[in-house]
Amino acid sequence: MQQFLEKAKNASRMIATLEPSLKDEILRKMADALEKNSFRIMAQNQKDLENATYNNLSPALIDRLLLNDKRIHEMADAIREIAALREPVGRVIDGWVVPSGLKIEKVTIPIGVIGIIYESRPNVTSDTAALCFKSGNACVLKGGKEAQESNTIIASILQEVLINYGLGKEIISLLPDYSREGVSQLIKMDKYVDLIIPRGGEALIRFVSENATVPVVKHDKGVCHIFVDSQANLENALLIVINAKCQRPSACNALETLLVHEKIADIFLPLMMEAFNEQKSIVKGCEKTQKLLHVALATDEDFHTEHLSNALSIKVVQNVDEAINHITKYGSGHSEAIITENYTTGERFLNKVDAACVYINASTRFTDGGEFGFGAEVGISTNKLHARGPMGINDLTTYKYKVYGKGNVRA
Amino acid sequence: MQQFLEKAKNASRMIATLEPSLKDEILRKMADALEKNSFRIMAQNQKDLENATYNNLSPALIDRLLLNDKRIHEMADAIREIAALREPVGRVIDGWVVPSGLKIEKVTIPIGVIGIIYESRPNVTSDTAALCFKSGNACVLKGGKEAQESNTIIASILQEVLINYGLGKEIISLLPDYSREGVSQLIKMDKYVDLIIPRGGEALIRFVSENATVPVVKHDKGVCHIFVDSQANLENALLIVINAKCQRPSACNALETLLVHEKIADIFLPLMMEAFNEQKSIVKGCEKTQKLLHVALATDEDFHTEHLSNALSIKVVQNVDEAINHITKYGSGHSEAIITENYTTGERFLNKVDAACVYINASTRFTDGGEFGFGAEVGISTNKLHARGPMGINDLTTYKYKVYGKGNVRA
Repeated sequence: MQQFLEKAKNASRMIATLEPSLKDEILRKMADALEKNSFRIMAQNQKDLENATYNNLSPALIDRLLLNDKRIHEMADAIREIAALREPVGRVIDGWVVPSGLKIEKVTIPIGVIGIIYESRPNVTSDTAALCFKSGNACVLKGGKEAQESNTIIASILQEVLINYGLGKEIISLLPDYSREGVSQLIKMDKYVDLIIPRGGEALIRFVSENATVPVVKHDKGVCHIFVDSQANLENALLIVINAKCQRPSACNALETLLVHEKIADIFLPLMMEAFNEQKSIVKGCEKTQKLLHVALATDEDFHTEHLSNALSIKVVQNVDEAINHITKYGSGHSEAIITENYTTGERFLNKVDAACVYINASTRFTDGGEFGFGAEVGISTNKLHARGPMGINDLTTYKYKVYGKGNVRA
Repeated sequence: MQQFLEKAKNASRMIATLEPSLKDEILRKMADALEKNSFRIMAQNQKDLENATYNNLSPALIDRLLLNDKRIHEMADAIREIAALREPVGRVIDGWVVPSGLKIEKVTIPIGVIGIIYESRPNVTSDTAALCFKSGNACVLKGGKEAQESNTIIASILQEVLINYGLGKEIISLLPDYSREGVSQLIKMDKYVDLIIPRGGEALIRFVSENATVPVVKHDKGVCHIFVDSQANLENALLIVINAKCQRPSACNALETLLVHEKIADIFLPLMMEAFNEQKSIVKGCEKTQKLLHVALATDEDFHTEHLSNALSIKVVQNVDEAINHITKYGSGHSEAIITENYTTGERFLNKVDAACVYINASTRFTDGGEFGFGAEVGISTNKLHARGPMGINDLTTYKYKVYGKGNVRA
């Protein structure tokens, strides 16, 4: 493991200062190579699919694993889009001259070696490899065991392109040991690995956070709220709540708990319930809600839960502060929204709620690298430090200070 | 511990959105309070000094502990300077409109609860408390056991001001348990603590890094290099090398290893040695150095060592790439400098060397919050992520995205 990661570290130094045009050319060749080798990919993918069937994986999981011509073409296109993004390395993000006469530049640089742990979908392998490459980082990928054959062939094809350019294949590598023990070792190798990004279930993220000595940027759960204020435009509120809950309930930025101001609850909730019944959502509510709707009682556990389904919990609150306090207690710091026309109430919510993304009069579903204009995303960080919220290629860089003197010494 | 940290967390929410003018007023009152209570401080400090004498601490360490009228006045002035800094919370660091029409603002916010672990000097207590307060954070301070009485009275005086303003004293608190066990608990409380900043010896930093589940920003050692290129202005080189090594050898940004291009080694090294002899530095060198100077052989260990004294190791190298490779192997990612008039060589060094601060034609001693224009500094981070290099109040903030819609839903 140590030898393997030492090679990744050396490879990261090799690509850290590669010319942007060369990086983009290599990425486009990688995209072409995936398409040209689609038969090789599908042959290996078939093995994963057979294993999945043998292991009685659910049809939904098997569908996630499946690679066909269309999906391979989409993977290639995703790489081409990443190639077309603005160069993230070498941006001067700040700069000034100090009294001693030194010119100081704060400049973005690659992070180094990034370990990414993810689950079933094999397209994540090419997406994250391309994102790391574009931002000048070496990556060590650890995908789901069930996609191992697919991931291996995808990584091999990308590595073949690197080799054709005389670059080390260790720029993109798969973790050799797919077991928990392999992950356990990886996350302690702070001498070689600069960042770990775990994407997956709570157990994995907890395990990584508790055991890593390498810095971790988590992609954790989202328990997102919308507060419909007494001064909300109710038509907007209805559209936004339905969108946030129903458009894609399995997303981490989907609505889990609706908070409604008591002054408009008797008008808004029945309206909303009607719309929800069309969407076949499962609604629970607090005692005040139960006076207005025929729903089951929402428990403390319901308010803590990321359902990833069409379930919704409702709480009637007295004012914006009760809404903020509920979010402070139950929220996961992901995405929170208020619907109001009142300036002061809106600003209070936006400022007081501590979350990666706080919205006024918009759906929480916009928390997404694409919607934020970042292009492809690494994921949505629930960290408070380094990267927060949608994480694009710029978040795969750190910085250094370049200091230009004229023989300056310190007095 | 949990109850104690829960209070700190609640306190952090209270000050996160405090008005800037009020924060500054409170800071100025804290400065006044330290001066007005100088007798109380000195009385408690006396106990620490007596313990130190009883425990046979070195005169240098005892001097670090000592607080007198002048030093208390300096502590107060440091707080006043922090009050005068530009407000770090609420800065809009980026902002744009996306195709869906949403306006997105990236805005700085406090981090939350910051745990700071430091050593002997008691002025660090008031400095860091003020830095955290100015940036809207609650802090949990853990100073050196030998300064416990001084730290306790300083914190109490600051807390009295908070209480006078009707604010919770938990905004600034000392860790109740000063033992290693106390630290051990603190660094695992990721539910309540958002950041740990350990400042101190390697053993402490290693312990914290290995055991923390809270994110850590390290303030680790500096093994800093200067490379004198064949095309250096030798007069500048001489001044810079002497400054970097001799002006304050105990600083982490002081020079440890000098790298000299072989083409000018025979001219430069004897010149430099003459200047060094005046400064009574202890010089060692590689075999090539030994052909030019009468010095002991520098071992691999010497090249790895942060001496914190007037010791210097010298290595003669063939070119800038050998210099860069040496720094990659032995450097600590702190501060590295090249002295050259050659544009291409200079840029190569600045780009290829991975360190928080890279210099051309200036002394590494400038790596400092004050010299960088940040005002007071929390320290110098050797992290690669979150904060790198001199860490000012802006580095005690993180960000959120504020998103302004007009009823937007995701398509």
